Amino acid sequence: MTKIYPVIMCGGAGTRLWPLSRKSKAKQYHNLVGDLTMLQETILRMQGVDGVNVADPSFVCAEQDGEIVKEQSAAIGADVLRVILEPMGRNTAPLAAIVSQLFDEIDPEGLILLLPADHHIANKDGFWSCVAKGAESAKSGKLVTLGIQPQGPETGYGYIKSGKMLASDVYEVEKFVEKPNLETAKSYLASGDYYWNAGIFLFSPQTMIASFAQHAEDIQNTCQTTLTASTQNGPFLHLDGNNFSQVPSDSIDYAIMERADNVAIVAPVDIGWSDIGSWSELANLVQSLDAENRNQDNIIALDCKDSYLRTDGPLIAGIGLEDLIVVVENNTVLIMPKDKAQDVKKVVAGLKDKGRDDLC
Amino acid sequence: MTKIYPVIMCGGAGTRLWPLSRKSKAKQYHNLVGDLTMLQETILRMQGVDGVNVADPSFVCAEQDGEIVKEQSAAIGADVLRVILEPMGRNTAPLAAIVSQLFDEIDPEGLILLLPADHHIANKDGFWSCVAKGAESAKSGKLVTLGIQPQGPETGYGYIKSGKMLASDVYEVEKFVEKPNLETAKSYLASGDYYWNAGIFLFSPQTMIASFAQHAEDIQNTCQTTLTASTQNGPFLHLDGNNFSQVPSDSIDYAIMERADNVAIVAPVDIGWSDIGSWSELANLVQSLDAENRNQDNIIALDCKDSYLRTDGPLIAGIGLEDLIVVVENNTVLIMPKDKAQDVKKVVAGLKDKGRDDLC
Repeated sequence: MTKIYPVIMCGGAGTRLWPLSRKSKAKQYHNLVGDLTMLQETILRMQGVDGVNVADPSFVCAEQDGEIVKEQSAAIGADVLRVILEPMGRNTAPLAAIVSQLFDEIDPEGLILLLPADHHIANKDGFWSCVAKGAESAKSGKLVTLGIQPQGPETGYGYIKSGKMLASDVYEVEKFVEKPNLETAKSYLASGDYYWNAGIFLFSPQTMIASFAQHAEDIQNTCQTTLTASTQNGPFLHLDGNNFSQVPSDSIDYAIMERADNVAIVAPVDIGWSDIGSWSELANLVQSLDAENRNQDNIIALDCKDSYLRTDGPLIAGIGLEDLIVVVENNTVLIMPKDKAQDVKKVVAGLKDKGRDDLC
Repeated sequence: MTKIYPVIMCGGAGTRLWPLSRKSKAKQYHNLVGDLTMLQETILRMQGVDGVNVADPSFVCAEQDGEIVKEQSAAIGADVLRVILEPMGRNTAPLAAIVSQLFDEIDPEGLILLLPADHHIANKDGFWSCVAKGAESAKSGKLVTLGIQPQGPETGYGYIKSGKMLASDVYEVEKFVEKPNLETAKSYLASGDYYWNAGIFLFSPQTMIASFAQHAEDIQNTCQTTLTASTQNGPFLHLDGNNFSQVPSDSIDYAIMERADNVAIVAPVDIGWSDIGSWSELANLVQSLDAENRNQDNIIALDCKDSYLRTDGPLIAGIGLEDLIVVVENNTVLIMPKDKAQDVKKVVAGLKDKGRDDLC
């Protein structure tokens, strides 16, 4: 079977999970659901299952995060293929261009599985089953994406509309659409052929290289120059800052996926996926937390209902709380009803406006 | 005019103001309303007004709190007459017996004004006007108490029923009654001759000594023995532990006031009194806090309403909160709706049950 090279993107900021997620240690480097960090959960998921042929994972992360990626991999005994260090953020399109050029040299016959570090997936077998379904299309020149089965009329995700069937559970992509309003999201859900875009892509290096040549040649050229000037140090590939700063910032969706006509979707992907994009999503995911909370040494919940209490040390005493989220992390206390969880980003923005970057 | 000797009782635990108020530093030693501590506010109030003749204040406190009393007095430039140090708590009756015997030696012609350290009184002039009204009765052999004008059918206070008029705004006491249920409290309020018992008393040493001889001779005798064995060190009077441990524990209300037939009440006392017995009382007292909170460096309140946020350091970010109390003190976070403020004592009791005295 074709070898798959996972490339784990660690660039997310996870702003809505402040004050846990901060610039100095973003969401993916924290444990949200269990004892392992999101990154470690993703690494273990990338160890594959019987019947798939998976290489050691590679990573793309901010320069400052290289060591934490290495440490968190080592802590679970995982080997690392490459850690690509970005001197600055340039969104996802440049990193797709860079890993395509890189892996075209390492194994031009392999497939690249590009995925975010900070997603929760309950069903690992299901994940690999979906990847396996898409592999043949990817080998034959498609840019393959996973279409997550919508669990409701979510307005926080982009959607992908499926078109003509290519194989079992694999379809052409008719179009990518931006985050919809609620009414539109409901119509997507009703239609049955719209899926959540989880930002997980499977493709061969040459297919992606050809797509960049056609749709985003400036990104490809500046990335090639960057790679030539970059330095390797063990698993670490330090992208050259002078050159990388010249690369246009763009998302892979906008630069490539929405423009290419060779995009395929594996759908429906129903694998217990969540991007845990907000505290309320985490609270809903961990349904039994209320009961667990009561048993924690530093959480007292008296007459509390449907509430999520989390602390990294200080005692929390909650009395008569309902549908409330309380997060004590990094010497900061956040309190809000679940339905205000989206407004965390306003607080972070306000802190930045005040020059309190030390808190963000 | 007769000289008045204020004796400030510092023995309150203030459990319902946990986690601010703890055994190691109880409510009265903290600032609740302004920049001064409750004790300091009380000391300044005891400096009197024109036309009254007030001695420097004396204090009764736990042995471990002697230094903090001295420090907080010195910090506002107040002189101290006596600091009576209790090796253990014995409620209020023994301390009334001890200060009566003590001040009978210092100035048998003076009056003792016995009052708690942890009450808020907005109207200082009004307070002294009420004390002056009661002074003549106290001189003539009455145990005088202040009858606070009820502000509502409170079930958290004891009440005093007034009887025959003795002088302008001074009445005989018909009876003391325990904390009532709501229905009874409403009937008290409607009757117009029930007042809140604030535990503030004015009396001559000899009157109190005679009352103890009649109603609680065992307390008086053991207190006399304690005093004889005690040691003076500057303003500090260290009560002898062996003897004091033999003193029966009882409240002045139960041991003396409810039994004596020479009790008078100054009423109505309408001086902006509050014992700030709970976080909700404090929140209601400090009505403008919402606005103030928003301007504090370490409090962010976004779309919050009628909520009280307080921190001794860590940043609090509250979003969409309503009628909520959030207190961050001593590395502990307390969150509850205002109407659950009485349940704080359950949390403290629970912590004690768990052996977490370090947190209480």
